[in-house]
Amino acid sequence: MKNAPLFPHLIHGGDYNPDQWIDTPEIWDEDVRLMKLAHINSATVGIFAWSLLEPEEGRYDFDWLETVLDKLHANGVSAVLATPSGARPPWLAQKYPEVLRVEESGIRNEYGVRHNHCLTSPVYREKVRQINRALAERFKDHPALALWHISNEYSGACHCDLCQQAFRDWLRKRYHNDIDELNHYWWNGFWSHRFTDFSQISSPKGRGENHVPALTLDWNRFVTAQHVSFLENEIVPLRELTPDVPVTTNMMCLYPGIDYQEMAKHVDVISWDSYPQWEHGRNEQEALTHAFSHDLFRSMKQGQPFLMMESTPANVNWRDVNKLPLPGRQAQASLLAVALGADSVQYFQWRKSRGGHEKFHGAVVDHAGHENTRVFRQVAALGEQLEQLDEAVGRRCESRVAVVYDWENRWATDRYCGYNNVRRDYAGECIKWYAPFLRRGIAVDVISETDDFTRYDLVIAPYLYLLKEGVKERIAAYVQNGGHFVTTYLCGVVDPHDLCYLGGLPAGELKDVFGVWAEETDALLENAPGRASYGGRTYSVDHVCDILHADGAEILGTYESDFYAGSPAVTKNSYGKGTAYYCAFRSDGDFADDFCEDLIAACGVAPDTAIQIPKSMFLRKRGDLIFLFNFTDVPRTAELDRPYLDVLNGAAVEGALTLPVCGYAVLKSSD
Amino acid sequence: MKNAPLFPHLIHGGDYNPDQWIDTPEIWDEDVRLMKLAHINSATVGIFAWSLLEPEEGRYDFDWLETVLDKLHANGVSAVLATPSGARPPWLAQKYPEVLRVEESGIRNEYGVRHNHCLTSPVYREKVRQINRALAERFKDHPALALWHISNEYSGACHCDLCQQAFRDWLRKRYHNDIDELNHYWWNGFWSHRFTDFSQISSPKGRGENHVPALTLDWNRFVTAQHVSFLENEIVPLRELTPDVPVTTNMMCLYPGIDYQEMAKHVDVISWDSYPQWEHGRNEQEALTHAFSHDLFRSMKQGQPFLMMESTPANVNWRDVNKLPLPGRQAQASLLAVALGADSVQYFQWRKSRGGHEKFHGAVVDHAGHENTRVFRQVAALGEQLEQLDEAVGRRCESRVAVVYDWENRWATDRYCGYNNVRRDYAGECIKWYAPFLRRGIAVDVISETDDFTRYDLVIAPYLYLLKEGVKERIAAYVQNGGHFVTTYLCGVVDPHDLCYLGGLPAGELKDVFGVWAEETDALLENAPGRASYGGRTYSVDHVCDILHADGAEILGTYESDFYAGSPAVTKNSYGKGTAYYCAFRSDGDFADDFCEDLIAACGVAPDTAIQIPKSMFLRKRGDLIFLFNFTDVPRTAELDRPYLDVLNGAAVEGALTLPVCGYAVLKSSD
Amino acid sequence: MKNAPLFPHLIHGGDYNPDQWIDTPEIWDEDVRLMKLAHINSATVGIFAWSLLEPEEGRYDFDWLETVLDKLHANGVSAVLATPSGARPPWLAQKYPEVLRVEESGIRNEYGVRHNHCLTSPVYREKVRQINRALAERFKDHPALALWHISNEYSGACHCDLCQQAFRDWLRKRYHNDIDELNHYWWNGFWSHRFTDFSQISSPKGRGENHVPALTLDWNRFVTAQHVSFLENEIVPLRELTPDVPVTTNMMCLYPGIDYQEMAKHVDVISWDSYPQWEHGRNEQEALTHAFSHDLFRSMKQGQPFLMMESTPANVNWRDVNKLPLPGRQAQASLLAVALGADSVQYFQWRKSRGGHEKFHGAVVDHAGHENTRVFRQVAALGEQLEQLDEAVGRRCESRVAVVYDWENRWATDRYCGYNNVRRDYAGECIKWYAPFLRRGIAVDVISETDDFTRYDLVIAPYLYLLKEGVKERIAAYVQNGGHFVTTYLCGVVDPHDLCYLGGLPAGELKDVFGVWAEETDALLENAPGRASYGGRTYSVDHVCDILHADGAEILGTYESDFYAGSPAVTKNSYGKGTAYYCAFRSDGDFADDFCEDLIAACGVAPDTAIQIPKSMFLRKRGDLIFLFNFTDVPRTAELDRPYLDVLNGAAVEGALTLPVCGYAVLKSSD
Repeated sequence: MKNAPLFPHLIHGGDYNPDQWIDTPEIWDEDVRLMKLAHINSATVGIFAWSLLEPEEGRYDFDWLETVLDKLHANGVSAVLATPSGARPPWLAQKYPEVLRVEESGIRNEYGVRHNHCLTSPVYREKVRQINRALAERFKDHPALALWHISNEYSGACHCDLCQQAFRDWLRKRYHNDIDELNHYWWNGFWSHRFTDFSQISSPKGRGENHVPALTLDWNRFVTAQHVSFLENEIVPLRELTPDVPVTTNMMCLYPGIDYQEMAKHVDVISWDSYPQWEHGRNEQEALTHAFSHDLFRSMKQGQPFLMMESTPANVNWRDVNKLPLPGRQAQASLLAVALGADSVQYFQWRKSRGGHEKFHGAVVDHAGHENTRVFRQVAALGEQLEQLDEAVGRRCESRVAVVYDWENRWATDRYCGYNNVRRDYAGECIKWYAPFLRRGIAVDVISETDDFTRYDLVIAPYLYLLKEGVKERIAAYVQNGGHFVTTYLCGVVDPHDLCYLGGLPAGELKDVFGVWAEETDALLENAPGRASYGGRTYSVDHVCDILHADGAEILGTYESDFYAGSPAVTKNSYGKGTAYYCAFRSDGDFADDFCEDLIAACGVAPDTAIQIPKSMFLRKRGDLIFLFNFTDVPRTAELDRPYLDVLNGAAVEGALTLPVCGYAVLKSSD
Repeated sequence: MKNAPLFPHLIHGGDYNPDQWIDTPEIWDEDVRLMKLAHINSATVGIFAWSLLEPEEGRYDFDWLETVLDKLHANGVSAVLATPSGARPPWLAQKYPEVLRVEESGIRNEYGVRHNHCLTSPVYREKVRQINRALAERFKDHPALALWHISNEYSGACHCDLCQQAFRDWLRKRYHNDIDELNHYWWNGFWSHRFTDFSQISSPKGRGENHVPALTLDWNRFVTAQHVSFLENEIVPLRELTPDVPVTTNMMCLYPGIDYQEMAKHVDVISWDSYPQWEHGRNEQEALTHAFSHDLFRSMKQGQPFLMMESTPANVNWRDVNKLPLPGRQAQASLLAVALGADSVQYFQWRKSRGGHEKFHGAVVDHAGHENTRVFRQVAALGEQLEQLDEAVGRRCESRVAVVYDWENRWATDRYCGYNNVRRDYAGECIKWYAPFLRRGIAVDVISETDDFTRYDLVIAPYLYLLKEGVKERIAAYVQNGGHFVTTYLCGVVDPHDLCYLGGLPAGELKDVFGVWAEETDALLENAPGRASYGGRTYSVDHVCDILHADGAEILGTYESDFYAGSPAVTKNSYGKGTAYYCAFRSDGDFADDFCEDLIAACGVAPDTAIQIPKSMFLRKRGDLIFLFNFTDVPRTAELDRPYLDVLNGAAVEGALTLPVCGYAVLKSSD
Repeated sequence: MKNAPLFPHLIHGGDYNPDQWIDTPEIWDEDVRLMKLAHINSATVGIFAWSLLEPEEGRYDFDWLETVLDKLHANGVSAVLATPSGARPPWLAQKYPEVLRVEESGIRNEYGVRHNHCLTSPVYREKVRQINRALAERFKDHPALALWHISNEYSGACHCDLCQQAFRDWLRKRYHNDIDELNHYWWNGFWSHRFTDFSQISSPKGRGENHVPALTLDWNRFVTAQHVSFLENEIVPLRELTPDVPVTTNMMCLYPGIDYQEMAKHVDVISWDSYPQWEHGRNEQEALTHAFSHDLFRSMKQGQPFLMMESTPANVNWRDVNKLPLPGRQAQASLLAVALGADSVQYFQWRKSRGGHEKFHGAVVDHAGHENTRVFRQVAALGEQLEQLDEAVGRRCESRVAVVYDWENRWATDRYCGYNNVRRDYAGECIKWYAPFLRRGIAVDVISETDDFTRYDLVIAPYLYLLKEGVKERIAAYVQNGGHFVTTYLCGVVDPHDLCYLGGLPAGELKDVFGVWAEETDALLENAPGRASYGGRTYSVDHVCDILHADGAEILGTYESDFYAGSPAVTKNSYGKGTAYYCAFRSDGDFADDFCEDLIAACGVAPDTAIQIPKSMFLRKRGDLIFLFNFTDVPRTAELDRPYLDVLNGAAVEGALTLPVCGYAVLKSSD
């Protein structure tokens, strides 16, 4: 695999479906003409093209694709070549019904939609491997080929007999073929569930077992494992035939169905599809969510640049109401991706399809078919700007602060039954603790529980309900050695099997680390929040809160409502050379931001520049480039500490820099 | 078939189920006594009577029905005789399971409810034809027989293997047995859906294909076709044995499941069931919806009178909350039907059943069993009034204005994915543009896209998303030759296969007809409407709006919000001898009414009388009779232009005529 | 069966699952140590222990249970021994798939959860009887054994072929093997439903018949009958081997799925599980609901004390938001149960499980594992208080007032289609008419339609839609002989088959009893209530109201809105020696309370003590003990009529007695 940057320039491209227009080849020529006008340098081809690539079993027709790749290459456009497994041709489903999914009902799906394949089916895996091999053989030396794109937005699960058997085999392996080991970890004494044989187990489902949390957790893990092995099966011929072409697959924001932190290990480059929902009054929050995701996906490969594989140049078509974003918004969001580590701005989709489910999804080229549209002009203008940012390409990001977001903890917090069963929103909590850093120009990684804490000065792990193997020991060691660690309510409640820790919370040695015992957890009704005080201010207590005993910790804040008024709500504990904070409640107000203000000072974490921004702006430095953003609905002003060069327009700037709505700037010190 | 009016008088009758009371024949005698008291002259018998008519396979027992018909006839009551196919006897379902429906799950229904039969099953069709033939043979010469009523409220669909096969055969025929033709029109290149054989296709369903809009459209068409052929199968023996007895089937308001405009061609008389939901504060809107439907059903046979086959004399039982209508409301609604072309006022139901699902549905005769009830008295009084209106009978309605409501466009607008996926409400938009005419005493037809435009001075086609074959050419010709044509947002987006028109919207020559190009379509959030100005007033912009370029058209109104503020929102274009208007936005305010005010003046469409009514009243002329209505919740006054005769009470009226709440009047010039 | 009180003391115990901790027997020893500290004298063991009791087919392992029972007995703790049928071991479901339920879909469930067994399966009944016999044989002489607890929270239903066959057999018996009798009572003439053979009938279901109310009613009765026969099958070996040990099964609040009034006849002691949802602002209403249920369950055995078999010592885990109750709330609710006839306070659960679905459900012993928790201390304190109340044990309650709540009427009112199909809330209406008595210190029973009215001075039967066989005759006789009877809207509409009474409502002689004819019933929209006046005050008219003709009755109140303004809304009729009241409307305001104030005076029903309480307090006398409660969110004060002894703390009290929030007192006359 290549180690150099994939491209000398930022990738500007997107999903391109010439296969839909095979009967009108004049459209293909028009496409390349328009790509040049739009400053497009990359096209993703072949997604969902299987029924054209293999029109009947074993007969491949790749000539049209070669023609397309030739045209692209001749016009300076590289190809991201997709494997077609995301949607199968009808003949395949008709001949081999096993390739279609079975839902929880036990009834096999009929042919239809995409993402409708069994992850286990040997036939399907074989057919996919065969066509991938054929593609690699045909195009391994094609000069346009820059990257393999495996399938598309892997998702879902299958409950067929083959999958049940695979699940049982996976369990046998996990539990050393010892059914009593499984019985213990799943706590099967509850409700008379002690199995006597692995054959008695089936996937969780509404019409079967749906009340065993450890089963559901293991099923989530198994579904990830099946996706990974399906992915690996796809990659085998590619690695063999095109060892120098890197491999990616496009992931989806905070999609819970697959542990992306696990899947990330199996691709060379991380890609993801970013579709913010821009709406007056919530643009800032939406930008935060996507910024968080950029940092999350980048952190999966320790700072290596990622690709924003999909985004829309206009509106999408699949939300309830698909309002047009303001002019400039798409460019702003694209630059945010680049600021946070993306080496690409790619679109779904190049050209609107004439029919089908996504014909009204925003595209660079509309049904009108020409370049004289507002959207096309905006894309072309952005393409020109991206060409000014070559020095960002391949530049890794480094952070001294990390927020923990962990897929297994997401699964566990989504599913446990107790305390507050609505609006768990683990991701929302993590974003709440992530935002203060982006708002202050401090780089931040978003890592899993098993990532290395010692790379950071400060680690914040909100709502850390499930502790994976060794995590509590690693937290203790991290703090012992001088780290700063922050957690919140319901910390360290269960082990990786969703078995509760005995002996008081937080689990085991964490009581010493934080110097507290969390005796009870209260739940708050939506319309009846509690109150807590910290630093002379009062905050709402929402959703849940722990009732604490300080056992050595310093009390920084207390509850002011309910029968536990006066008891500790925020604590700080010196442990070894480090410090551990316990913030025992959720607050929908400004608590996290105010607390982080103090925390940043206490931990000595410094902003990456001396530019002064209001909290309503975002700032991030990548290499020597400083990116500034205004995602609010009014103009915002930053105070520059020195003269800068505005990289996008070559102007010199100093003093006050005001960004309008949708505004952004890329600065470089002009010293 | 008879050409004369079906009856010399307006029909006053309803659904009559003597079969439920076969063990208490004294009730039958009481029924005819009460019918006389209530001025009833028609009874619809035999609906859902199959299990009594054919108690075991092949053994018909029609004697009881003959007794009933004899009694009716002896008392001056004609019979509408129903075929019993709407609900089958248990023995039939038990012996021939294929007659029951299969839902999308693929699981066959069990016996139960009504409307639960396969439309394709040869056995069911055969059994229906046999009993229909037997009924016709037995009663063809019975003097009470006035009309055949085929089945009851056809609806739903079946997904069994027989239906799948029939669907595939239907597709083969539609697409000339050429799978690639189908692949093109369904745009099957999208998501790898190119079929290689028709056998790979199945009905749309949640657990199969549900994302191919053209498939869903074709399935809708097929379901209509199956209903039509089922209906035709029912009619065969009736036409053969009773060629002079006309045939009808009762349709349901704006039921989307069957293209009634297509089905209408296969019956002699249009019937429909009208159940307004009267509620303080929305009575006027509800009356508009039902008036629209009356005009729609009448227009299906170019103005031929129709039957209001069902209505309730009191409340219904199947809504969430079934409030009693105000006294007088039912008479008022009945007269509205007559004003708009109905030759009947018929009830569901004559007598409340003792048990079963509809035992609390309003009826002329309550469980109390006698005539001394408020409801009975009201029905009898209305019966007397209807007897004053003989001159309305058979009188056709003529209109110079048409609003387009088209079933295929309804299907398409209900289902496409994009822009605004909630509250599409195509019917609501059509009613919004229909109302101004009813409010101004101007007769209006409600026609399909394929109906003849040239019969009208003015045609309004709101939300004309899907253009059937030849429609854009017919619009162009209509305007070219002097017609006035109005359309709104998202006009001419797709062809009959839901394939997008290329080259800019509205499709093809419509850009010239309207003199605009609609570059983009924005969607509005419920709580954040936009604004547009027209004629010095400002209107809300709701749901969606097109962003236009005027390309020759005169700009009558502009947007006042969002990034497209200042761009055209309402345009007018001279094309040939005619004029074409483009209203690019939906407005929940008064825009349509205000615009129509100007339009009426511009087109020279005159009210049918010189009576001055406020917009809150409705006026319609049928023959020489002038019907006036007040459906608001306060009294309303009309100014009469000359002396009139009040037909219902014989009084002379002139000057101001005030109608109370629930008020109506039927006037005739006394000159 | 023993006739003496089950225990000399109030039972203080709960569900105990030592089987979940079989691998850590040190926990068992800790359990008995902690039970002593918590003043626990009873433990319910064996629920859901089947997979440990019979680890493989036919091999019973009861040694561990004997060890547990020995330990309990040695520590003064009695055992409630459960049969394990509520959840089966995996091997059983695997070997005999017929034991698992089939849902309406016709698809058999997979193994999982609890309550997932076919009620009919001969194999399951046999396996249950075998293990019950084995348990009885092994433990019949164990000194700890005090009570049999059959299964757990019976609920649900099965639709498998075995159940269909059993249902048909049950119908054959009910209808004398005469299908035409069934056709008549089900009114099968409607929608062509006349069956010709019982084999054509199936359970009601979404994909079959779901519109025949009489079928649904009979299915409800059948499901109750199957539960009863399942229960009886369980009891057979217990009665044979342990004739002196009483039998109970735990029921669930107002669970509609089983006619508990029928099931109650088949157990020796009534038990139920009480889980109020405490929330600021609705505590009082919640307490009323649970008080109503206590009185309902007690009345099932004519005042015999019952057991509160489950309650939570803290929060539950299964509601959306599980707020911690205030300290003191659980004790208060426990004393309310005792006041109303409970001989026990029992918890789910003794110790939190480590894993599984209920691991966060409140328990006496938390995961922390020790006694130093707030919850443990509160339970122990309550245990001490209960020990002061020996004289309550076994004491029956007597009442002169009854409110009718009847399961069959619940089914019928839940399901009929008509008038107002949302928020039927039959139970809520009964509670509304129950509350005034609890608020005034007047004991009240909650009885079925078939219970003996003559035991009471006053019977109130709200919303008495369905009249069981003989009920209208019994009401007439009761009033004739001097009783006071109150009913509300929609009284006497249908017979036990949901067949409407003919000839005017209320049914038959009830028109004479009440002196009214209810001609029509109106339904009110949520946001548009009507108005009625009574006693000089105006009340809202909600949901539905009857439009009455007074036919001999005195008019006490009239409607003030809609077209029936001025017509009677509340009537009183002298009939024989008694009086009958008809309150024709539902009101969400204070009408029921105000009316009862007058009613109590009119009927001469006296409070049980002369203590003066505000309506916001509850008072109930049990034996010589007077229980007072404040369930509001502010302190409340009672005026004592004489000196009393505060039984719980031995203090003398007189004059004003103020109860704080969560306050309660148990007084005894100190004269």
